[in-house]
Amino acid sequence: MYGDIPNTSVVVQKYGGTSVGSPERIRNVAARVARQYRAGWRRMAVVVSAMSGETNRLVALVRDVNPQASAKNYDMAVAAGEQVAVALLAAALEGEGVAAEPFLAWQLGIVTDEAHARARIRSIRRDKVEAAWAQGRIPIVAGFQGMTEDMEITTLGRGGSDTSAVALGVALDAAFCEINTDVDGVYTCDPRIVPAARLLEEMDYEVALEMASLGSKVLHPRCVELGAKYKLPIVVRNTFTTDDHQRTRVMTQTTEIESLAVSGVTLDKDVARVTVSGLGSGSVGISELFSVIAQRGINVDIIVHDKPGMKSEPGRLGFTVAKGDLSATVETIGQLAKKSAGSGTGASVRADTESGLAKVSVVGVGMRSYAGVAGKTFAALSDAGIQIHMISTSEIKISCVIAETDGAKACQVLHKAFFENQ
Amino acid sequence: MYGDIPNTSVVVQKYGGTSVGSPERIRNVAARVARQYRAGWRRMAVVVSAMSGETNRLVALVRDVNPQASAKNYDMAVAAGEQVAVALLAAALEGEGVAAEPFLAWQLGIVTDEAHARARIRSIRRDKVEAAWAQGRIPIVAGFQGMTEDMEITTLGRGGSDTSAVALGVALDAAFCEINTDVDGVYTCDPRIVPAARLLEEMDYEVALEMASLGSKVLHPRCVELGAKYKLPIVVRNTFTTDDHQRTRVMTQTTEIESLAVSGVTLDKDVARVTVSGLGSGSVGISELFSVIAQRGINVDIIVHDKPGMKSEPGRLGFTVAKGDLSATVETIGQLAKKSAGSGTGASVRADTESGLAKVSVVGVGMRSYAGVAGKTFAALSDAGIQIHMISTSEIKISCVIAETDGAKACQVLHKAFFENQ
Repeated sequence: MYGDIPNTSVVVQKYGGTSVGSPERIRNVAARVARQYRAGWRRMAVVVSAMSGETNRLVALVRDVNPQASAKNYDMAVAAGEQVAVALLAAALEGEGVAAEPFLAWQLGIVTDEAHARARIRSIRRDKVEAAWAQGRIPIVAGFQGMTEDMEITTLGRGGSDTSAVALGVALDAAFCEINTDVDGVYTCDPRIVPAARLLEEMDYEVALEMASLGSKVLHPRCVELGAKYKLPIVVRNTFTTDDHQRTRVMTQTTEIESLAVSGVTLDKDVARVTVSGLGSGSVGISELFSVIAQRGINVDIIVHDKPGMKSEPGRLGFTVAKGDLSATVETIGQLAKKSAGSGTGASVRADTESGLAKVSVVGVGMRSYAGVAGKTFAALSDAGIQIHMISTSEIKISCVIAETDGAKACQVLHKAFFENQ
Repeated sequence: MYGDIPNTSVVVQKYGGTSVGSPERIRNVAARVARQYRAGWRRMAVVVSAMSGETNRLVALVRDVNPQASAKNYDMAVAAGEQVAVALLAAALEGEGVAAEPFLAWQLGIVTDEAHARARIRSIRRDKVEAAWAQGRIPIVAGFQGMTEDMEITTLGRGGSDTSAVALGVALDAAFCEINTDVDGVYTCDPRIVPAARLLEEMDYEVALEMASLGSKVLHPRCVELGAKYKLPIVVRNTFTTDDHQRTRVMTQTTEIESLAVSGVTLDKDVARVTVSGLGSGSVGISELFSVIAQRGINVDIIVHDKPGMKSEPGRLGFTVAKGDLSATVETIGQLAKKSAGSGTGASVRADTESGLAKVSVVGVGMRSYAGVAGKTFAALSDAGIQIHMISTSEIKISCVIAETDGAKACQVLHKAFFENQ
C-alpha cells in the first residue's frame, strides 16, 4: 500500500473537510482506513477536520450572536465541528468492524499556548495513542483544536488540521504524514487554469513552502514548516481515488539527482496594492510605517521602493497586502498622516490603493543553479502582452504582480515556457 | 425579581432548546441574564440545552453513518450541540457587557457513571463555579452532558438538561432552580387542548412527578425526582415573557393550607396495548414474561389481569407499553412462546396488539382526602360517551386508557368536571 514501508510503521493520516463532507463520504473514508487496517497497518492514527461547511456555519453563528465575541468563546463553538466529525468517523469504522477510539484534543493531551483562534501546539502526549494501539484500536483525533494548560479549548487557526496531523506525526515518530484531500497532490500549476499541468511526484520542503505561500492551496505553509523542522515526510493524496501512485511526497531529499529548475507556477488573486507618497525627511519614516502596520497584524508582501535622487521630492513606496487587510492598512496610514500633519514637520503623507491585481510566481530550488529563469519569465509575460506592475524575487522564486484579468493567461504562458517546451 | 429571596442567593437557571433556538433568541436570553446580573444577582449559574433541532440533526448524522453506532460515539457527536450553545450564550453575554465563563461538563467536573446515552450524574465539583463567581463571571454550563472518570464524554438521555440544572442546583446549594422554557409553567391541562386551562402557581414534587410521568411535557420526571430528593425548589417559567408572576413553583410544602383535590388532567398519546393469552399453568408464567420484557429495557405501564376462576382455562393479561416498544415486546413474547412450545408443557402463548390508544389521567395529592374523584372521573367520561378500555389508580392519580380519537374530548370533559364547575 505504501511501497517499501513496512506495515509495522507508524502512519498519521489526515482527512480534510471535503473528504468527510457527508455521511456517505465519512463511510468512504472509514472503508479506506479499514482496508489499510486489514492490510496489516495497525499503528495508524487518523486526524479529521470538520465536515465541509460546518466551520463556516459555526463562525457565522458566533458572529451573529456577537460580532466582537472573544476568541475563547469562538474557539469553543467552532471546535464542535471537529468533535462531530471524529465521533462520526469512529462510528463509521465500527460499521466496518474496525475498533476505533475517538479523541478530542483535551482527551488526547494536545496542549497549546493560550493564543485563542491561532494557538500553537506545545506538546502532544502519546500514551493514549499507544494504549489504543495496544488494544487494537485506531485513534481518531480531532484536528484544528487544542487545550491550554488551564483546560480551555483553543483552535489553531488557518491550516489547523494539517498542522495537527503533522504535529501528531512528529509526536509519534511517524514514518510519514498523509494529507488526504480532494486533489491528487501538488501540480506544476492549478489544473483548472492549466489543463496540461503535471502532478509533482516529489518536492523539497522549501519549494512546498514557497508554493503554499504563493497561492497553491493544497498544503498550508504552517504544516510544511513543521514537517521541515522535524524532517517528517508529508504525502499529499486524493481521498476519492485508490491509485497509490498518484500523490505528491514532500521530503528533505528528493530522489531526483538534479532538481528541476522550476517546480511550479502559482497564482494568488488575493493581492491589493497600496502606494504611499509624502514619506521621509521629517515626515513619517518607512520603518515607522511598517512597524505600525505590523502592529495591526497586517502582513505586507511585496515592497517596491521608488525614491528619486532629488532630496526635495518626497519619497514614494508601493507594497501589497491581502485584500481583506486593505481598509485597515489605509486607516492605519491615515492615522499616521494625521499625527505627522499635527506635528507640522513636513509634506503630507497620502495612500492610494489599487485592487484588481494578482501575483503570478515561478518557484523552484533549481533556480539557484540554472541561470535565465528570470529572463525567461519576463519574456513569456511580455510576449503575451501582460504588463508587470511589481517584481519580487528570492533564491527560489520570482513573483510578478499583474492585472487580475491577466492571471490565467500568465499561468498558461509561464507553464508552457517552463514545462511544455522541453 | 425573585420576590423575597435576597439577591445574594445562589440561583441556577436553565434555558431549553427553543429558548436558545436562534442567534436572536440567544441574545434575548443574554439580555435577560444581564438584567438580573445588573439587579445585583451575582451568584447565578446558567445551564443551556442545544439549539432546538440541533440534537436531532446530530442524531440523524450518527444514524446515517452507522445505525448501530456505539453509545460512546453517539455521545461524543450529540454533546457537540450543547457545546455550541454554551459558547454562543457566553459570547452573547459578552455583547451585553457581562463577563461569562463557558463550561463543558469535563471542564466543570460533572462526573457520571459509564452508561453512555443514559448516564447518571455522580458528582459535580463546585470549585470552578466559585472561582468564576469570585471573578465576577457568570458560569454558563453545558446541559445534557457529563464525563466519566476515564475522561469519556457521556450524555444523560431524555430530560438531560433539566437534570443537569437541578443537579447543579443541588451541588451549589441553590435557593432554587429555574427551568426557563417556551410555556409559562405547568397548567391544569394542556392549553392547546383545553383553552380554559389555568396555570398552576404551586405544586408538590409528588404531583409534578405524576403529571410529568403521565404526559405533561413541561418537566421531565427525572429532574423532579432529583429536586424532591434534595428538596430543591424548581420554578418553571417562560423565557419569552418578563412577567415574574407567571410561573409554576414545585416545592415540598405548598403555601396553600389545603391542597386541591385535583391539580391537573394529562393526556399521553404514546400508548399501545398488548394482550397475552395462554399464560400460566406449566406454560410461560407472568413473572417470567415481565422479567424478560424488563431485560429488553421496555417499560410496562398499566397492567390488567383478567384471570378466570377455572383452572383449565388459560390466563389472559393486558398491559400497555410505549408505541416505539411494541414490536420489541411482541418479538420478546414470540421468543418466549417458541421456548415454551418447544418444551411442550402447555397451552401456546399468544400476543395480540392494539394501537390508536391514549391515556387520560387525573392527578392530585388532595385525592387522598377527598372521596369521589374516581366516581366523578368515570361519570364525566361515560356522560361524554367515551369508552374506558383500562383503568389504573394510585393514591394520587386515576388513569384511563381510551381511544386516541377520544383524547381531546376526555381532557375537556374532565377539566370541566374538576376545574370549571366549582
